[in-house]
Amino acid sequence: MKSLRFFDSAATTPCAIAAVSRWVRCQEDAYGNPSSAHRLGREAAKEVTEARSFFAKTFGVPNDQVIFTASGSESDNLAVVGGALGFALPSFTSKQEAKPLPRVVVSSVEHPAVRQAALSLSDFGFEVRLLPVDEHAGISIESIERAITPETAVLSIMRVNNIVGATYDVETLARRAKELAPGILVHCDAVQAFGKVDVPVAGSSVDCVSISAHKLHGPKGIGALILLNRSLLTEKRIRPLIWGGGQEQGLRAGTTNAGLITAFAEAAQAALLDRDAFMQHCEQLSMRLLQGLQDRQVIFELNSPSQAVPYIRNLSFDGLPSRLVAKLLEDQGCMVSTGSACSAQKPERDSTLLAMGLPDSRVDAAVRISFSKENTLEDVDSLIDALVHATKTLRAMFKKDAPLIPEASVI
Amino acid sequence: MKSLRFFDSAATTPCAIAAVSRWVRCQEDAYGNPSSAHRLGREAAKEVTEARSFFAKTFGVPNDQVIFTASGSESDNLAVVGGALGFALPSFTSKQEAKPLPRVVVSSVEHPAVRQAALSLSDFGFEVRLLPVDEHAGISIESIERAITPETAVLSIMRVNNIVGATYDVETLARRAKELAPGILVHCDAVQAFGKVDVPVAGSSVDCVSISAHKLHGPKGIGALILLNRSLLTEKRIRPLIWGGGQEQGLRAGTTNAGLITAFAEAAQAALLDRDAFMQHCEQLSMRLLQGLQDRQVIFELNSPSQAVPYIRNLSFDGLPSRLVAKLLEDQGCMVSTGSACSAQKPERDSTLLAMGLPDSRVDAAVRISFSKENTLEDVDSLIDALVHATKTLRAMFKKDAPLIPEASVI
Repeated sequence: MKSLRFFDSAATTPCAIAAVSRWVRCQEDAYGNPSSAHRLGREAAKEVTEARSFFAKTFGVPNDQVIFTASGSESDNLAVVGGALGFALPSFTSKQEAKPLPRVVVSSVEHPAVRQAALSLSDFGFEVRLLPVDEHAGISIESIERAITPETAVLSIMRVNNIVGATYDVETLARRAKELAPGILVHCDAVQAFGKVDVPVAGSSVDCVSISAHKLHGPKGIGALILLNRSLLTEKRIRPLIWGGGQEQGLRAGTTNAGLITAFAEAAQAALLDRDAFMQHCEQLSMRLLQGLQDRQVIFELNSPSQAVPYIRNLSFDGLPSRLVAKLLEDQGCMVSTGSACSAQKPERDSTLLAMGLPDSRVDAAVRISFSKENTLEDVDSLIDALVHATKTLRAMFKKDAPLIPEASVI
Repeated sequence: MKSLRFFDSAATTPCAIAAVSRWVRCQEDAYGNPSSAHRLGREAAKEVTEARSFFAKTFGVPNDQVIFTASGSESDNLAVVGGALGFALPSFTSKQEAKPLPRVVVSSVEHPAVRQAALSLSDFGFEVRLLPVDEHAGISIESIERAITPETAVLSIMRVNNIVGATYDVETLARRAKELAPGILVHCDAVQAFGKVDVPVAGSSVDCVSISAHKLHGPKGIGALILLNRSLLTEKRIRPLIWGGGQEQGLRAGTTNAGLITAFAEAAQAALLDRDAFMQHCEQLSMRLLQGLQDRQVIFELNSPSQAVPYIRNLSFDGLPSRLVAKLLEDQGCMVSTGSACSAQKPERDSTLLAMGLPDSRVDAAVRISFSKENTLEDVDSLIDALVHATKTLRAMFKKDAPLIPEASVI
């Protein structure tokens, strides 16, 4: 078996040894329930407080504005569903004439955890709007102005798109949204951004930010919703999804997880220290990949826009079905993604690429290559070799010049 | 420092070495995202499937009826909130005259994750009823008959109470509830029961069961809702709390956590194999404790009913404030609980003890002693010594015969 080369870091990353060690140490020394009053509880609580302080300092907020959850998906849902219900719930039980519920606006290229959460709200009567994007996955100020009414409850826009790596000037979009709807809650999914590019912090027009550990070499099963705007807490503007023992300021019940939380802090700290080097490294990997493919005359279209982060590159190879390309790459030891891992088991066309207006044939050919600090230039050279081999093999399998997939009309 | 003796296993237990090892091994070998199509994803998915099969077999259900969550609290909320919303949501957006929402019924001694989840539903207009209990924490068939109407959406009754260890004949209560309300969803919180006493399995009148890993020497951050009734899945009777990538049959989004899931299976398997010995061991520990206290003439009242599980013993020591008793016990190296760990940081009177009708003075004096397989008879002897010392010290600090806390009227 060839050695494995992992180019799917946007789906997940291996947990760093230091983070694994922190978790294991917690199982030995701090296994108490942090809500317990006794020494073992206090020791676990102390570990949690230290980790919480790290995130609080990083975002410039008090400790109690760091809400730990079990995932980026949970953080996204807490913000979008919790924010919308927190905004509108009084009117559910109002004795008055039922009035239509407010709008919830999210971009059409959000992660399913935001998009599906938003869409689920239409069952309650919310009016859900998906912001359109242009062919570069961009979101214009004008689209914000068209979508946001004074009664809009929630706006959610990601910092870095998980499929093509597009980045968003969330700050400018959030500021405009607040001019149009002063009571709006603006959420930013920063799961693919935190520890890599800058994200909204205290003082931002963004009210809350989702982050996750396992995208930056932390363990799976831990994320956070950072409340940048204190009124979310003091005015109870977010309704919990999980009720119970009052943990996380009453916003998220369940035994506080000292092991995963300290491991998350460990991994995040390392990522933040390493950020500039990481970005430079990914620029190199990305340039090597694109240059190498051109040099070797591999036919491809770059689906990632020019302003995309260097650690996510989405390419379509000459109409060749991405699943076959990925299979042949895997035979060469290279792991890539043919869609967001979150929905890889569902054979649906990717919604980000469709929202960009790419034709189906290009969507069906799209391969996502995502880097971590562990990838080397040599890895990329192997990937180029594997791509040359895969595209040649597949092209030879089919009649030349005949499109493999009938071109469908753009959705 | 005296060696630590941990009598707070109902709050949490240390993760067993075998379970820690499984988690660590997954970080090395199966760190892929189980939703990814490539080899690393498939390897992680295989680990998850094996663990899922274990739980499925244990409960006699197909694999897809095991829904992994991040905690017992999340499982409880998914069943109670998800079940109620799944039952009633169509009527929210109905154009017809708004009709009152159905009832949600839970016992008054439920864990806060069930009780608060149920109470939260009144904001939507659900009519929430708390079933009363008698002085032994018992729930009568008559109280079910009084509370359940044909339109009741959800009934939730725990298998083992976390504060006093009372056990419930959930099967009989569920069967009667279904006669009265055929469309009802019956949920059982088995977090304190699974791996220790029998819990509802396939064929039961109970529709779904919550379990959690960290109460049986598994890791924190992983639980499950087991769907015993397939129609919960096929007829979409439960509404997800966390939307996104469609994991866990669409009922719970978020990256599937191979590490925590396999560690959970490891710990649960060990607990189930060890069950009879565990129960016998706890019987011994419990008898030794109560006999020892009597022999040493420690004045106490047993708050646990006679049918309580042997691994949870709740006692009030002669009106002595439990926080002071616990503090002195801790000085002797013994950790006990003065309330459910889930709410230990909130100085509220425990709702289980209040529901049993105990006077405030006895509630304020209540100490919970909970055992795991790691406790020894020698541990219990040390606890008895420590209790003799603590009660003598505190009694001497206050005037004899003067109650420390004025007797308040029973709530």
